[in-house]
Amino acid sequence: MPLIYAFDHRHRKPPMELKDLLGGKGANLAEMSSVLELPVPPGFTITTAACVTYMDEGWPPGLDQEVERHLAKLEKKMGSVLGDTEDPLLLSVRSGAKFSMPGMMDTVLNLGLNDRTVRAFAKANDDEGFAYRSYARLLSMYGRVVLGASAEPFDEALDEARVAAGVDDEAALGADAWKALCKQYKATIRSATGKPFPQDPHVQLRAAIEAVFRSWNGARAIAYREQEGIDHRLGTAVNVQAMVFGNRDDRSGTGVAFTRNAATGENVPYGDFLLNAQGEDVVAGVRITKPLDALADDFPDLHAELLGHMHELEAHYRDMLDLEFTIDQGKLWMLQVRVGKRTGPAALRMAVEMTTDRHIKLTRAEAVGRVKPDQLDQVLHPRLVDHDHTVVAKGLAASPGAAVGVVVFSADDAVERARSGDSVILVRKETNPDDVHGMLAATGLLTTRGGLVSHAAVVARGWGKPAVVGADAVKIHGRSFTVGDVTVEEGDTISIDGTSGEVALGAATLTAPEPSPEFDTLLSWADALRRGKLAVRANADNAEDAANALRFGAEGIGLCRTEHMFLRADRLPIVQQMILADTDEDEAAALDELRRVQHQDFVEILEVMDGLPVLVRLLDPPLHEFLPHVEDLDLKEAAGTLTDEEKRLRAAAEDWAEANPMLGIRGVRLAVMKPGLYGMQVRALLDAVRDRVQAGGKPIVEVMIPLTVSREEMELARSWVIAAAEELGVTSTLLIGTMIETPRAAVVADQLARVSDFFSFGTNDLTQMTFGFSRDDVEAKMMPRYVQQGLLPGDPFASIDTDGVGALVRIAVEKARAVKRRLPIGVCGEHGGDPDSIAFFRSAGLDYVSCSPFRVPVARLAAAQACIADG
Amino acid sequence: MPLIYAFDHRHRKPPMELKDLLGGKGANLAEMSSVLELPVPPGFTITTAACVTYMDEGWPPGLDQEVERHLAKLEKKMGSVLGDTEDPLLLSVRSGAKFSMPGMMDTVLNLGLNDRTVRAFAKANDDEGFAYRSYARLLSMYGRVVLGASAEPFDEALDEARVAAGVDDEAALGADAWKALCKQYKATIRSATGKPFPQDPHVQLRAAIEAVFRSWNGARAIAYREQEGIDHRLGTAVNVQAMVFGNRDDRSGTGVAFTRNAATGENVPYGDFLLNAQGEDVVAGVRITKPLDALADDFPDLHAELLGHMHELEAHYRDMLDLEFTIDQGKLWMLQVRVGKRTGPAALRMAVEMTTDRHIKLTRAEAVGRVKPDQLDQVLHPRLVDHDHTVVAKGLAASPGAAVGVVVFSADDAVERARSGDSVILVRKETNPDDVHGMLAATGLLTTRGGLVSHAAVVARGWGKPAVVGADAVKIHGRSFTVGDVTVEEGDTISIDGTSGEVALGAATLTAPEPSPEFDTLLSWADALRRGKLAVRANADNAEDAANALRFGAEGIGLCRTEHMFLRADRLPIVQQMILADTDEDEAAALDELRRVQHQDFVEILEVMDGLPVLVRLLDPPLHEFLPHVEDLDLKEAAGTLTDEEKRLRAAAEDWAEANPMLGIRGVRLAVMKPGLYGMQVRALLDAVRDRVQAGGKPIVEVMIPLTVSREEMELARSWVIAAAEELGVTSTLLIGTMIETPRAAVVADQLARVSDFFSFGTNDLTQMTFGFSRDDVEAKMMPRYVQQGLLPGDPFASIDTDGVGALVRIAVEKARAVKRRLPIGVCGEHGGDPDSIAFFRSAGLDYVSCSPFRVPVARLAAAQACIADG
Repeated sequence: MPLIYAFDHRHRKPPMELKDLLGGKGANLAEMSSVLELPVPPGFTITTAACVTYMDEGWPPGLDQEVERHLAKLEKKMGSVLGDTEDPLLLSVRSGAKFSMPGMMDTVLNLGLNDRTVRAFAKANDDEGFAYRSYARLLSMYGRVVLGASAEPFDEALDEARVAAGVDDEAALGADAWKALCKQYKATIRSATGKPFPQDPHVQLRAAIEAVFRSWNGARAIAYREQEGIDHRLGTAVNVQAMVFGNRDDRSGTGVAFTRNAATGENVPYGDFLLNAQGEDVVAGVRITKPLDALADDFPDLHAELLGHMHELEAHYRDMLDLEFTIDQGKLWMLQVRVGKRTGPAALRMAVEMTTDRHIKLTRAEAVGRVKPDQLDQVLHPRLVDHDHTVVAKGLAASPGAAVGVVVFSADDAVERARSGDSVILVRKETNPDDVHGMLAATGLLTTRGGLVSHAAVVARGWGKPAVVGADAVKIHGRSFTVGDVTVEEGDTISIDGTSGEVALGAATLTAPEPSPEFDTLLSWADALRRGKLAVRANADNAEDAANALRFGAEGIGLCRTEHMFLRADRLPIVQQMILADTDEDEAAALDELRRVQHQDFVEILEVMDGLPVLVRLLDPPLHEFLPHVEDLDLKEAAGTLTDEEKRLRAAAEDWAEANPMLGIRGVRLAVMKPGLYGMQVRALLDAVRDRVQAGGKPIVEVMIPLTVSREEMELARSWVIAAAEELGVTSTLLIGTMIETPRAAVVADQLARVSDFFSFGTNDLTQMTFGFSRDDVEAKMMPRYVQQGLLPGDPFASIDTDGVGALVRIAVEKARAVKRRLPIGVCGEHGGDPDSIAFFRSAGLDYVSCSPFRVPVARLAAAQACIADG
Repeated sequence: MPLIYAFDHRHRKPPMELKDLLGGKGANLAEMSSVLELPVPPGFTITTAACVTYMDEGWPPGLDQEVERHLAKLEKKMGSVLGDTEDPLLLSVRSGAKFSMPGMMDTVLNLGLNDRTVRAFAKANDDEGFAYRSYARLLSMYGRVVLGASAEPFDEALDEARVAAGVDDEAALGADAWKALCKQYKATIRSATGKPFPQDPHVQLRAAIEAVFRSWNGARAIAYREQEGIDHRLGTAVNVQAMVFGNRDDRSGTGVAFTRNAATGENVPYGDFLLNAQGEDVVAGVRITKPLDALADDFPDLHAELLGHMHELEAHYRDMLDLEFTIDQGKLWMLQVRVGKRTGPAALRMAVEMTTDRHIKLTRAEAVGRVKPDQLDQVLHPRLVDHDHTVVAKGLAASPGAAVGVVVFSADDAVERARSGDSVILVRKETNPDDVHGMLAATGLLTTRGGLVSHAAVVARGWGKPAVVGADAVKIHGRSFTVGDVTVEEGDTISIDGTSGEVALGAATLTAPEPSPEFDTLLSWADALRRGKLAVRANADNAEDAANALRFGAEGIGLCRTEHMFLRADRLPIVQQMILADTDEDEAAALDELRRVQHQDFVEILEVMDGLPVLVRLLDPPLHEFLPHVEDLDLKEAAGTLTDEEKRLRAAAEDWAEANPMLGIRGVRLAVMKPGLYGMQVRALLDAVRDRVQAGGKPIVEVMIPLTVSREEMELARSWVIAAAEELGVTSTLLIGTMIETPRAAVVADQLARVSDFFSFGTNDLTQMTFGFSRDDVEAKMMPRYVQQGLLPGDPFASIDTDGVGALVRIAVEKARAVKRRLPIGVCGEHGGDPDSIAFFRSAGLDYVSCSPFRVPVARLAAAQACIADG
């Protein structure tokens, strides 16, 4: 296998499908060059396979030779030679992994310049200032990203030079200033790295390539992959490309564009550009950009040509694209194209509209696949309530949703305050990959510079985090900011709205989100695609939850936790009476009273869910959850105010206290210790069923026994339910099933299946027991370190651990279905609303997932996608 | 399949192998009748299959007809007819399950008598007293065991009759007294059951058969099966047999005998008999029996005949037998034979001696199979130290071992006091199946009547519980007993020695046990049979434990827990310094100090275990175990005596407190949080290895990482160990393995195997997590109920749960060996010393088990048996 492919290499497959090998950027450059024959500066891609070899064994054998060979071809094509002192070829070197990855080495521009070629370059352009500015840029970039020097001395020197020259824009600096800067930069490099800047362009090239390879395993890149679940073994490609210059003169420029509006989805091309600038200037948001339309004023032909390319690209890729272009002395070059990131509302609108776009003609299944389930969250995001807060500034609406939080000014502070439980708004002039950890920790982002395609905006949209960017009325001064005469200190609370761009003082009220028409359209398509394959229910414990569940499209209740009914202030004393009962009569009386109150709860839920299944889990938590804390009563005793009742409660609390409540007497175990309990609950439920039937309703109930570990246990619990049903004369079929939430239940699922009418996986507890991880104890204190150090692929409570917990789920499903081929099986843990987990559950053969009501739309979409993927 | 077989039916297989179908008693009766043609009263066996049918579907179709047909044959053989008013046939009906089972209906004698046949019976025997005494016995037995009436009124009426007649022995009562008793007994039955005693002998027979069937599911029978792990689905057979009478006259008698001494194993027949008595009189221990030799005085021919039969039986069965015989007017009848229960020392002696007995010629493998592993415990049992206590009485040494405990006089009291934590000596006149629960709860048993084959003695030996029986100097008066002028109240402490028969006041000192020569012989055979198949190591945390382990034959240390070294009073402050360390320097200093002290611990252990492997588990428990309780410090604070150091300790204790410590930050997780910890321990260990090598020793160490859940975690821990080894220049191969103690580790065992040199199953934690059972919380409070109600087959912490935990063990072994075919795998949980679990571990392919030093002999024997069974 070659280690390098030229952009215009004729691949057998469309290059856009070769991202594994060429990386995303390289694949798309090849697609534009070799398939669409768009104007792309020539170059070549060093494959990800070369990077993987580098990681495993060091510099790949033969790579130097291949680089030289491809460089020679490039030189021939360009008619100039790297390092030539007459007409030097200049190169850009860019990383390009399969998935775009902040935190990796990005770009080195102007590679090939040195103390001699810079003079030739100045001569060739007849512009000494431009040449030395280009050289300075190389020195600064090379020093930082290849040699690992700090950015500060470079930036400070430039600032000083600007101040000295009395100019705002570095473009206004003269040749002498740039020459001086080059000298200063070289000194900086020598003092920071102990070595001089390499004058040999071939040495520069090799070092830049190696720096890209190395940057794959940089700490930030690893952290990003952890966050995004990207395989550490993929490696990155390296793109070596002839330089074109958007900053050569005023007939040059550079820009980024989207084929449609990435924030709203509107089918109107959108972009920013800067005259006399390089790409980094646009993305960094340091200079205020012009909108794409303005290009028509300056360069109408180029504008038309660009729109033409964009249209062709969109039709070819059949998706909204994000592209970079450069104009070099009036000639348009396409520097990059990729499928564009977008907000949730935009993703929905585009997906739906592209089904009727005659150039694109998405199928409904394709459209459903185009929206990431998490993007629906953005549609469902809250907004700031109008006229209920003091708007002090308005920036660009970069990522929808509103957020309220305390202001911090650095990424590290964001992490620290978030860790201490605060909701945080990170306020920065602009952001860069160094800030990613803080952006991740923040609830919302506010920047004072940069546009909708700035780093801050792109990253925030990717994560569905509210962001306002380019709010230039906001002035940052160390640890406070001012807007006019208002000062906001670090730690003050502000509110932002990423849908409107508003920045408000204090904690604003947030509205309920309003889904777009496309939301319903797309979800109806999703439902049609998954119907009969994977149902979506909701976890709901009361009528209000149930109503929400219905509104969000749940097809029933997958988990109704009866303990929440017990914990209500008016019921708790009755539960305590039951626990304290000295005689069977007292216990029976308390149980009767509980039956009466639970009955009404059930009636209300069944009324809302009429005609849909309602799965009721009988009491699950340990009894001490219904008793006061011993410590609190001890304090009362010390104060001499302990009543006799409280003395009894304390004795019961001590009696039922447990060393490891997670592994203690709860679920069906509790029912074995208090044999009247489950019968009472079932009677209350069946009373409600009877009432609903008498009222003309169609109640459908399923009774679930929690925490079973043996067939005999399930048989006993089943006998209680059946006895209650017979006592009440309930003759209709009543499904009685169990929760699979201990590893043993999974392993003996065949035995349990024989005496169960359904299974529901409780993957929260199953995960706790399979790993031996108590959420209370390990998740905050240990899990971040575990994930960061790569000891676990991710937090197993967020996405199901397919190797361990998932293996148990598969074992259980196989064993159970071997005994009862059609046993209905669902999941009601929090994983039921996680897209990756949903895909797993589908592959494992589950019939439904159940999640919180607000998560139901996400689950519906994820379930549809899992069904589509599954064929 | 027939539901009934006559005793003399010619089976295709030896009937003794048909215990599943015929029950133990029936199989052995058939063996004696049809194979050995010994004098057995004719009869037939209703199969266990009939009982199973009865349990599932009620009275088996066709059973009545088969009973009638076999009865007719029996009548023909005996020349008398059931219910005949001239010469009535009388029957015994006895239960007979595969395994002997107290708690089931045992026997109904004299069935066939009624108000009319009793007169014919009197005439035929020319003995009215005998006939009515027989009738009374039927009425009493039938009333109690078939009709379920209480025993008391029957016993009281008999006592009153004896007192009225002024006689001690009921045999001395006259005909009129017996007639009156019959009348009274019939009235008792009518008043207790509401129905008259059934006069129809066929009705009596059917009811007796059904009573046996029913008794299989009596509460006591179920409890016994739970205790002994007998399958509830086996069912019992019913033996219907022609009556012979040991109580017809003074030329009659009955007895029980062992072919060898069941207490010592000495090859001398042993037994008890009573003239003019029925079998129940001997077993119940109500009358003082004569030794077997005395039979030679009264009936020399019968004595010779009996010894001849016993010899023939022993040669045929190739084992020590326990048999019952009756002499009816000078004719010897064999009523029952079975392999005899025996003490541990007796089992050892017999097994070894039978290898050289020319009639038996056991192989060594057979001999090893003859001793139950738990019986070794008896050999290892303590004794009372001589001259160190006041012996007040001496009874029969019924079951070896000494016990100290508080005196109780009823089974219920035994259970209650034992539950409250007391060690209990149950003192009874005699015991019966009603007392079994109390005997189980007691540490030792003392009876004042009965012999070495009394109920108390047999049951105690079966359980390996110390017992002294027939201590007739002890007089029980309600809730106290007297011996001469000494009075012992309930709750007083006494000591008993079941090996010497001594009863002493107060808490005596106990000696260390002394194994017999046969102990070493048999264990050496066992070792030879298992060598290279299943090794036995010991869990030992210090040099003393290690020395014990060696003494008991351990082949290395399978688990050395380093935390016990940390918990010593002189080390705890250093551990706390490590936890409290604010700076890396402070932490490193504390770790250095710990390294120094642990080093010496390791040197001592390695010295004892020189040349044998020592597996060291790195620190496992959560840090808060090394910190004081917050509550204790709170009290100090309230008293104003909290030091600054204690304030810091309290803060640390609060910081490290966990909601579920079992699922918290411990094991390798702790090492990830405190990265210097494991390196320190390994350095201390390797320092010790170096010292031992310099001293000319041959230390072999294995390093075990606890609680791993992922390959990456194990790789990280492994890197610490290797770094420490490299730092210390250790070049020899160091095995680094992991503990499989979470369900996830079992499921991803293939991944862990790639980076592990060995596995050791921690089945304690694996059981806790697989079931979700916290030992602290469920074992005392819930487990007895669970086992009693049959919700679990047994306590999974005592014997491994093969369906659940065992399934995970098998999965792990299979997955690991698929990756590393020869990966050494052991187990170091408490199951490592449990015979049933050991058999499972062998079948699952483990290489060794590790258990506490005192348990090693038991494990060696169990392991050998598992290897033999496994071929």
